[in-house]
Amino acid sequence: MVTAIVNPLVQEVLDLIGIFAFALSGALLAVRKRFDAVGIAVLAEATALGGGLFRDLVIGAVPPVAFTNIAYFITPLIAAAVVFFWHPRLARIRRFVLVFDAVGLGVFCVAGSIKALNFGMHPLPAVALGAATAIGGGAIRDLLAGEIPALLHPKSEIYAVPALLGSALVSIMAVAGVLTPITSALAALLAIVVRLLALRYGWRAPLARGGVAL
Amino acid sequence: MVTAIVNPLVQEVLDLIGIFAFALSGALLAVRKRFDAVGIAVLAEATALGGGLFRDLVIGAVPPVAFTNIAYFITPLIAAAVVFFWHPRLARIRRFVLVFDAVGLGVFCVAGSIKALNFGMHPLPAVALGAATAIGGGAIRDLLAGEIPALLHPKSEIYAVPALLGSALVSIMAVAGVLTPITSALAALLAIVVRLLALRYGWRAPLARGGVAL
Amino acid sequence: MVTAIVNPLVQEVLDLIGIFAFALSGALLAVRKRFDAVGIAVLAEATALGGGLFRDLVIGAVPPVAFTNIAYFITPLIAAAVVFFWHPRLARIRRFVLVFDAVGLGVFCVAGSIKALNFGMHPLPAVALGAATAIGGGAIRDLLAGEIPALLHPKSEIYAVPALLGSALVSIMAVAGVLTPITSALAALLAIVVRLLALRYGWRAPLARGGVAL
Repeated sequence: MVTAIVNPLVQEVLDLIGIFAFALSGALLAVRKRFDAVGIAVLAEATALGGGLFRDLVIGAVPPVAFTNIAYFITPLIAAAVVFFWHPRLARIRRFVLVFDAVGLGVFCVAGSIKALNFGMHPLPAVALGAATAIGGGAIRDLLAGEIPALLHPKSEIYAVPALLGSALVSIMAVAGVLTPITSALAALLAIVVRLLALRYGWRAPLARGGVAL
Repeated sequence: MVTAIVNPLVQEVLDLIGIFAFALSGALLAVRKRFDAVGIAVLAEATALGGGLFRDLVIGAVPPVAFTNIAYFITPLIAAAVVFFWHPRLARIRRFVLVFDAVGLGVFCVAGSIKALNFGMHPLPAVALGAATAIGGGAIRDLLAGEIPALLHPKSEIYAVPALLGSALVSIMAVAGVLTPITSALAALLAIVVRLLALRYGWRAPLARGGVAL
Repeated sequence: MVTAIVNPLVQEVLDLIGIFAFALSGALLAVRKRFDAVGIAVLAEATALGGGLFRDLVIGAVPPVAFTNIAYFITPLIAAAVVFFWHPRLARIRRFVLVFDAVGLGVFCVAGSIKALNFGMHPLPAVALGAATAIGGGAIRDLLAGEIPALLHPKSEIYAVPALLGSALVSIMAVAGVLTPITSALAALLAIVVRLLALRYGWRAPLARGGVAL
């Protein structure tokens, strides 16, 4: 078992940044779909907490942190309120939200795989679970909004790949015995940078032979 | 920890009324979607048991009551059979079904938050989980039927709000030490009445500025 | 409690055949939907492992076998790679895939109900859970691909019914004390044969009066 390798307070602050960013993306999609105030709040909560909830159920960490740490529950509501009142301005800073979302992706894939390792999972499934933590909330957001999850189709830049890279680096470093707060931060940074480069240069996953972009 | 505050038999009878009402709504949507007999039964089960299943997984009450109490499993099949054979008549009593569904909503939000408190959850997340118990089954029903969950968009009268009110009242009364079978019933009644008034007077949640109704 | 009645190695080999078949069906749907390489891999994993994951969460077998047995995680990736590189040829052997999928259905409904009984569930919910294990992955596959789950509507031949038959036979034999590796295999065979006959002769579930096929 890996002992807690990240200062709990640092971990929580990073988590809350990721939760806020994911909640913004959920609330903005809800506004675009013309959902009402309830729909905006629900989509913000589901996007921000869905991935971590799935991870906690899988590793048996019940009740999940989403239902025990009040800050995790309140933060998406703040994001929903921000979007509800100021969304026309937020639309102009969509690029800003994408950067926040990339930070969330990086923090969540690292936090997810570390928590999985802490609960005694083997390194390879910990990679999968870390990535699922990071991409799960967005998938739930898209399903609730009646859309095919963005990470599945070639209209969007690679999203699961940076999460897998960050999670894989965590597992490799854990096996090598060099997983520390610093190297964990580097793994998160790797995922964030790859995601931002993918957005900047339009990196997309390959299609199967004979397949065409939507 | 709150001790069991509702007579278990009363609790179970109320639960089964809610399950039956939710199952009716699932089976009726399945008929409207022209699903076959299997689809009607599956949608009835998923609508009636989905919310409680989610709650039980979150609080670690496994196996969930949906899979341990045979009556919880059989009741949706009875509702599915009723709809399968007599749905043209049921369509005429749609108002009746909406009343039953409101009863289910009220019973489930109260039962859900009480069970969450019994499992040691803090009062605020218990509110969220009680509401999720009440609205979860309907959300799963809509997703399986290929529709955006009704509670998210402004075509439908407020649904999550009465559930949140009922759950919140339970948590407040638990903190105040006045949660009894009688006051629990009052909390359920509050949720039911608010839902029925919303249906009667067309109460809808507000839209974000610049948003328009679908 | 039923003791492990199937040789663990035989069980695992059968499981992996089912996983491979389900993963093929997920990957092929992803190609048809023009998802990219990531989408193909994710849909293969979700289809192959989703049903067992749901079962394990419900019975409290955490972490679920999908995240502890590496072979269960790798097998869908192999199926995804096969589809990615050779899908035009696979399209021609669609019938072959349907046979594999029927094998997966039969193996999973039996394995699911046996595992549920092993975890102390009563025979009737064990039937439901065995069937859910077998049909769950396909339902998740369809939802992620933006389609109504095939098992709900009358365009597809009966799929849940053979799974229920196989699971029910397992529970009946467990109660009667005649559940052995041989009779378990017979239950799986029953589900497989009924599913193949349904495909061959176009068996569909009945519609409610007034309902018409899509």
